[in-house]
Amino acid sequence: MTDPQGKGRRARAEDLRDFATHLLERAGLGPSATRRVVDNLLDADLRGVSSHGLSFLDFLVGRVQKGGVNPRPDVRVVSDRGAVLLLDADRGPGQVASHRAMSLACARARESGVAAAGVFRSNHFGTAGYYARMAADQGLIGLAVSNTGACMAPWGGSTPTYGTNPLAIAVPTGAEFPVMIDIALSRAAWGKIMVTLLRGEPIPDDWVLDRKGVPTTDPVEVVRGMPAPMGNHKGYGLAVMVDILSGVLTGALFGRHITTHPPEEEPQDTGHFFLALSVEHFMEPETFLGRVQDYVGQLKSSELAPGFDEVLVPGEPDWRMVQKSLREGVRLEAATWKTLERLSAELGVPCPERF
Amino acid sequence: MTDPQGKGRRARAEDLRDFATHLLERAGLGPSATRRVVDNLLDADLRGVSSHGLSFLDFLVGRVQKGGVNPRPDVRVVSDRGAVLLLDADRGPGQVASHRAMSLACARARESGVAAAGVFRSNHFGTAGYYARMAADQGLIGLAVSNTGACMAPWGGSTPTYGTNPLAIAVPTGAEFPVMIDIALSRAAWGKIMVTLLRGEPIPDDWVLDRKGVPTTDPVEVVRGMPAPMGNHKGYGLAVMVDILSGVLTGALFGRHITTHPPEEEPQDTGHFFLALSVEHFMEPETFLGRVQDYVGQLKSSELAPGFDEVLVPGEPDWRMVQKSLREGVRLEAATWKTLERLSAELGVPCPERF
Repeated sequence: MTDPQGKGRRARAEDLRDFATHLLERAGLGPSATRRVVDNLLDADLRGVSSHGLSFLDFLVGRVQKGGVNPRPDVRVVSDRGAVLLLDADRGPGQVASHRAMSLACARARESGVAAAGVFRSNHFGTAGYYARMAADQGLIGLAVSNTGACMAPWGGSTPTYGTNPLAIAVPTGAEFPVMIDIALSRAAWGKIMVTLLRGEPIPDDWVLDRKGVPTTDPVEVVRGMPAPMGNHKGYGLAVMVDILSGVLTGALFGRHITTHPPEEEPQDTGHFFLALSVEHFMEPETFLGRVQDYVGQLKSSELAPGFDEVLVPGEPDWRMVQKSLREGVRLEAATWKTLERLSAELGVPCPERF
Repeated sequence: MTDPQGKGRRARAEDLRDFATHLLERAGLGPSATRRVVDNLLDADLRGVSSHGLSFLDFLVGRVQKGGVNPRPDVRVVSDRGAVLLLDADRGPGQVASHRAMSLACARARESGVAAAGVFRSNHFGTAGYYARMAADQGLIGLAVSNTGACMAPWGGSTPTYGTNPLAIAVPTGAEFPVMIDIALSRAAWGKIMVTLLRGEPIPDDWVLDRKGVPTTDPVEVVRGMPAPMGNHKGYGLAVMVDILSGVLTGALFGRHITTHPPEEEPQDTGHFFLALSVEHFMEPETFLGRVQDYVGQLKSSELAPGFDEVLVPGEPDWRMVQKSLREGVRLEAATWKTLERLSAELGVPCPERF
């Protein structure tokens, strides 16, 4: 069943884009929402983040058809005071309101130096890094966080009360790629845990807790279990802060009010929080970029630890994977191809060519 | 040598405050700077964070006397644009400029909803949580970060290139204490590693890397080694972001330019970054506080994991320790008492009464 060469698992990015676009439009999602969603999902697959790529179409198509996701959301700015904006996502795909929120935060930050935008009544927004990079692509520093379905327990507890709550920060460098982090606040993202299981690989013993809060590596218990927080109580605290910014502060749901697998008829009502910071309110942008390059050079010129042949700066592995995906084609997991084949048959949209 | 009851190690908070105040003034630190420093250091000891408490007086006294710390800093706002402020700490104790920076950020955030303040030409600012809580005490959400002496290696490397770079966030709750995190981005704070060694306790095998970048528990190698980043590459990425915000963006030193133990004649030239967020720009403060209390209730009502008898929210252990310190006296490590006795003799300031 394993396929180490990955033969027959790649496709051209533009073919995948066309396929996903036709599929979502056929499912009933409006054209502008479709554009936002597809760009975000494809970006994840280009980076090798298969848990947040086109595999997500299954989740979306069902919800668009059953009503959990509003196919033609009317995203509205419900509050605009100073450097803070609050947006109602109108229960559309999270990508629609999130793109708008970060765009507005960036524009406002150019005026005031820093700006924040909150989003409520939303659904899954894809990868957080996508929005942080929107800021970096404009020469701003961007931060994006979101709450997600409650699947992790408080430190010392065993009741799932908050999500893996992604946190992304991107910094412009003036070079080929931004310095960027895009992390789940669990030791391993839930998607990564599932992909590891699907590949038949063993789960490390500090990734997952069973339903009583005890570490487990048993695949059956893992599926029913909870991701362990990154850095124990530290990750617990960080994830709580992300939930407060994304959910408590924006008016969205938060904590255990957000279920991991709501019925397809029901919106998730998650929230997101975005921050943009204008470099030029601190110093000349050219000076800043030179200083960032100095820092990148310091990191990359480190002596190597045993077993490593290079030091990468945060964001560099992503960028390399994008280059490879554009050169060799985007690699999708076998499970994702099965999902795409099924959706292709259900909605009558031809599957992309594989090689 | 161990002293499990801690007898003779406690003192009244006000006695410690008087002692530290007289000591720093005798060393030559100006009265207003002294007030800021002492309040910050004592706050750490009240919370049981002995690595950042009065043990730090030794570091400061030497630097004030030798010139590394300016005893009468003229902290200036060198740039004030929109919601962004930039402050020159004038090489004083980090606490002086940091208190001013967070105060200004809070005032500005009340107007614009969000505000940022950077500080450069600074020295160690004590605990980050102190400044984040300044915001929470006013009903705002506060974030405080700082770069510190380069002691950690990039992921895959072995050259110390960035510090443990503390990150604190505090959220007002309307209750007895804010929800708060105040974490080093290493698995364990360097101070905690040193305190563990001083107590003669073993070092866990994932806390420290030797100078080649290999995990070690050997006390000799630990002292010469490097803290491991929290969550491996994730902590590496977060610490890089803190360095960029605190150092690269503010005009301070950054990366390996910051040495862990500069000569006492030389300033550290570290930088700090503060952010304040106005809750009422998002929703009615009362509504927010009710939602935070709902969230706190969710966390605390979790079923317990084996081996725990209570779930605490982030910030609660700190608050409990403050209550205990005020009730029973502030407990200092034996090594700290030795330092205080030496400083007492050197500067002719009577040591506080112990019980």
